[in-house]
Parts: sequence; structure tokens; C-alpha cells
Amino acid sequence: MAWIGVDWGTSSLRGARFDEQGAVLEERAFARGILTVPKGEFAAVFDECFGDWMAAPGMRCLISGMAGSQQGWLEAPYCACPAGADDVAARLAWVERGRIAIVPGLSCEHTGALDVMRGEETQVFGALRLLGIEAGTFVMPGTHSKWVRVERGRIEGFTTSMTGEFYALLRRHSILARTLPTDDAELHEAAFDAGVAHALRSPGLLQSAFSVRTLSLFERVALNERASYLSGLVIGEELRMQHLNGGEHVIAIGDPALTQRYERALAQRDVRVRSVGSQATWTGLFAIAVKIDP
Amino acid sequence: MAWIGVDWGTSSLRGARFDEQGAVLEERAFARGILTVPKGEFAAVFDECFGDWMAAPGMRCLISGMAGSQQGWLEAPYCACPAGADDVAARLAWVERGRIAIVPGLSCEHTGALDVMRGEETQVFGALRLLGIEAGTFVMPGTHSKWVRVERGRIEGFTTSMTGEFYALLRRHSILARTLPTDDAELHEAAFDAGVAHALRSPGLLQSAFSVRTLSLFERVALNERASYLSGLVIGEELRMQHLNGGEHVIAIGDPALTQRYERALAQRDVRVRSVGSQATWTGLFAIAVKIDP
Repeated sequence: MAWIGVDWGTSSLRGARFDEQGAVLEERAFARGILTVPKGEFAAVFDECFGDWMAAPGMRCLISGMAGSQQGWLEAPYCACPAGADDVAARLAWVERGRIAIVPGLSCEHTGALDVMRGEETQVFGALRLLGIEAGTFVMPGTHSKWVRVERGRIEGFTTSMTGEFYALLRRHSILARTLPTDDAELHEAAFDAGVAHALRSPGLLQSAFSVRTLSLFERVALNERASYLSGLVIGEELRMQHLNGGEHVIAIGDPALTQRYERALAQRDVRVRSVGSQATWTGLFAIAVKIDP
Repeated sequence: MAWIGVDWGTSSLRGARFDEQGAVLEERAFARGILTVPKGEFAAVFDECFGDWMAAPGMRCLISGMAGSQQGWLEAPYCACPAGADDVAARLAWVERGRIAIVPGLSCEHTGALDVMRGEETQVFGALRLLGIEAGTFVMPGTHSKWVRVERGRIEGFTTSMTGEFYALLRRHSILARTLPTDDAELHEAAFDAGVAHALRSPGLLQSAFSVRTLSLFERVALNERASYLSGLVIGEELRMQHLNGGEHVIAIGDPALTQRYERALAQRDVRVRSVGSQATWTGLFAIAVKIDP
């Protein structure tokens, strides 16, 4: 049984060819996120990028990410939590029966509203396999950060925080942008830490964000430190909202430049971090693939 | 002793001529907020708008608002809380000694950071006088909403929430904007209430804002109701952060279209509202003027 895995997101398209044990033999990446693909042309783009791999006899492909959304190739209805790799394997959306399938995203309900993810579930299943564990708290930082609780190998629930997006809005479009340099400087650790600390003792970002203005007004944070302070504020706000116990650890999945900031910030809540890189996606796709009823 | 009062803000310039008891004889408004006035031309703009009033013998002028900021006519350093009308009257910035003065803004410290206001202190002093009270909790909704605590006629402290600005950022620049209609429809009360309720039970706006996306995805809020839902979310978030006791009342100062939304939202926290309109500025300027040591 030969597989390729594809991670088809909003702004990027990546693929990997696995051996029979799930080891990655070859990887490819394209700037063909779903936003660049007109409706009806997904099959053509897929062929163009992975047609040679799929030409091998018996080759199958499993896709995760926004390719399964309303704006994607084929809508894969959300699978309700709790859900494990076997649950999503049983609810695939088949583009071509027995050959190309899309992993459904997950949905859950909290504080009286629905929440959704697409793609992150696969990363979590991958991290579980990579670390050889069946339970834990996971954070996937980004434009829309996800916090995920896993028990007995199944995702019990999760929350979304629009952290990266709020940072970009405040950084570029708010009145605070006028007091920030246009260039992104390197991370200034002390300013970042001060932002995290302020967010953690503040009742909410609507209030704490104004401190960027007052600290600038009174010149208490230097110009080239203010973007780091703001980054600390929004990440600190995300952490303020989480139920975390001092002494526990969480698993961070993602780009090291970002997970390192979370590790630094979580130290202020006495929480340690284990990091897993982007290979979690490939391991997760393989973990789902092996659960598919042949 | 004859006075005129001027409210010179970021985007507007208003003036009023008072009789000796502080009743308004005449009002004027100009689209000459401080952002439209080049450095060094404040005196000329002032003359152009109010020169005829100031020509009367013994006429004096008191100005509140952003005209006293670093970007304004003359910087009036912040007066630290607690502060009453007599405190700010003793710390005026005189543009022309004995003739034209600017009211200082206030500063205070909370959650380890500084907070500032310019102009709202004058409105609060005005509302105290209009209502004949010496204590209370005040809310001034807007781009940067202020919540102010007053005891024995003095402002003890306050907080700023960037509510109006966050609404505009999310409404126009975020991913949520794609799921909202471009036109602002009338307030849809049930959707607004649902937004307030969700914010009040949510740990913070970074999370609750994502519900605009999921509710749209599952079509649980109609297209023309979504802006009202988002408005409820951000105002509800502002209210979530306040220390309020059920059964108490707060005084809302501002535009009725906005204070009515706050009244509606505060009902969910069992808090009643007394509203005061924009005349609070004139009453406040006169209340400060009578405290000036001649």
C-alpha cells in the first residue's frame, strides 16, 4: 500500500511521498494555496504538482487542510469531537473512491458557540505518534492559534484564538501602528516578556493594548522594542485565557521561530513546552492512512 | 467674567459662548480637528473660528481635548489622579496668560501600566454638575472608551478600552470582514444581544471573535445581522472586564446612538444607565472655569 500525503492550506501546498512504514522519501512545496486555485481547477493543479507520483501503480493520496473547506476541492463535513484518527479515517471525503481522499476537519462546542479546525487535527495525530503518547495539551500558534485537549488518543475539544491576526491588525492598521517602526526588528526579549506579563495581569486585550500607546507617550519602551512588546501582549492574552496548571507541560507544534516565543511566554505561567516541527503533518497523514478500511 | 468654552479634539472643533451662570448662548462647530492643523497654525485657526467672540472686552477661553496633546496647540502635562475640577483648574496650560488656557488631561496607573485621557475628564466634571452628584461610575463609549470612578467630586481612576477601534479593525480589515456585508445595516437587536451574551461568557475577545466566522460558516446568523452581532461582541467584551455589581447604575456620556447600545448591553449585567449628552462638555468647562484663581 503506497501513499502520498498532501497538506493543502489557504496559502501553500505541500506534498510528501511515504515508504511503507511512513518514512518520508521525498517532499515538494508549491505556492498554490487554495486561494490561488479557481473553483473547478483543483484536479488540474493536483495533477500538475503530483501527477508523476500518482502514476505509480496502486498509489493513493490523503489530503488535509483547507482543501476540504467550502472554498476547496471537495467539502469534507466537519467531524464532531471527541474524535481520533480512526474517526476521521471513517469520515473521509473521497475525491476519487479508493485513490484520493480529504481528511475532514473537526468541530466542537464551547462557551455556547461552535469552533472548527481543518488540518490541525492531522498535526495533533502526528504529534501523538511521534511522541508515543495518548494524552496532552497541544498548542498550534499562528494566525488562528489552536489549543487542543487529547485524552486516550482522541481530541476531546479545542479553542481558537485569533492571535496572529489581531497582532497584524494592531501592528498595521490601528492607531498603535503610528507609534511602531515600519520594519520588524528582531525579537527584543525583555520587551516581549513585559508585554506577556502585562497581558497576564490585565482583564483583556481591549484594555492592555492601550498600554502600547501610553508606554510610547511616556517613552518607557524604545521605538525598536515596541513590536516585541505588542507581540508579547497578544501572545500573553492568548495564554491568559487558557486553563493551565503550573508545573504541567504543553506540546507546541509549528514553526520554531513562533513556538520559541510561546515557550518563553509560557514560562511566566510555570508551564514547560515540548516542541514538534512540521513533520507532524506527514506523520499524522500516515497515521490516518493506516486506519482507512481498505 | 465672560467665558467661551472650546472642545478641540482629534477630528472636530466645537465652541460655545456662556452667560455668567454658564448657560450656553451660542454654539459653533468646525471640521478643524487637530489632525487638520499644521504645527504653528493653531492660533490662526482659533482666531478664524472664534476671533469675533474673543474680541469682547475681558473675554476668556478655556479649551479641553487633544489641543493639549503633543500634537496640539500647547502641551498641557497630564494631571495625576485623584483629581477634581479644582486640581485641573490649578494646572492649566496658558496659551495666553489670563486669556486662553488648555485643560490638562489626566493620568492614572492600573495593572502596572499608565493610562491617560484628554477631554473626558471635562465631560465627567460636567456630568457631575448636571446631575448634582459627587460620586459614581461613568462610561464614555467611543473609539477608545473610558470607564471612570468618581468619589467626593474627584476622579479616582479610570481605564481605557479600545472598543470602537477593535470593532472597526475587525469589521473592515480582518478575515471576518469577508463574511460581513459591506453596508452597515440598522442594529439588529437580537443579534446584538447574542454577541453581548457570548462575550460575557467567553474568556476574551481573541477567542469570542472567531464565533463570527463559525456562526457564518454554519449560517446561524444571517448576513445582515452579523455586524450587530460583532458590535455586541466587542461592547460585551468591554463590559466583561468591568467590576460592576448587579443593581447599581452607571452614567453614560455621549452620542445617544451609542449610549443606547451600552444601556441595552449593560442590562445583561443587571446594571441600569443614566444618560448625559454632549452638553456635559460645556457644563464641565464652565465648572473648571469658575475654579480658576483670577
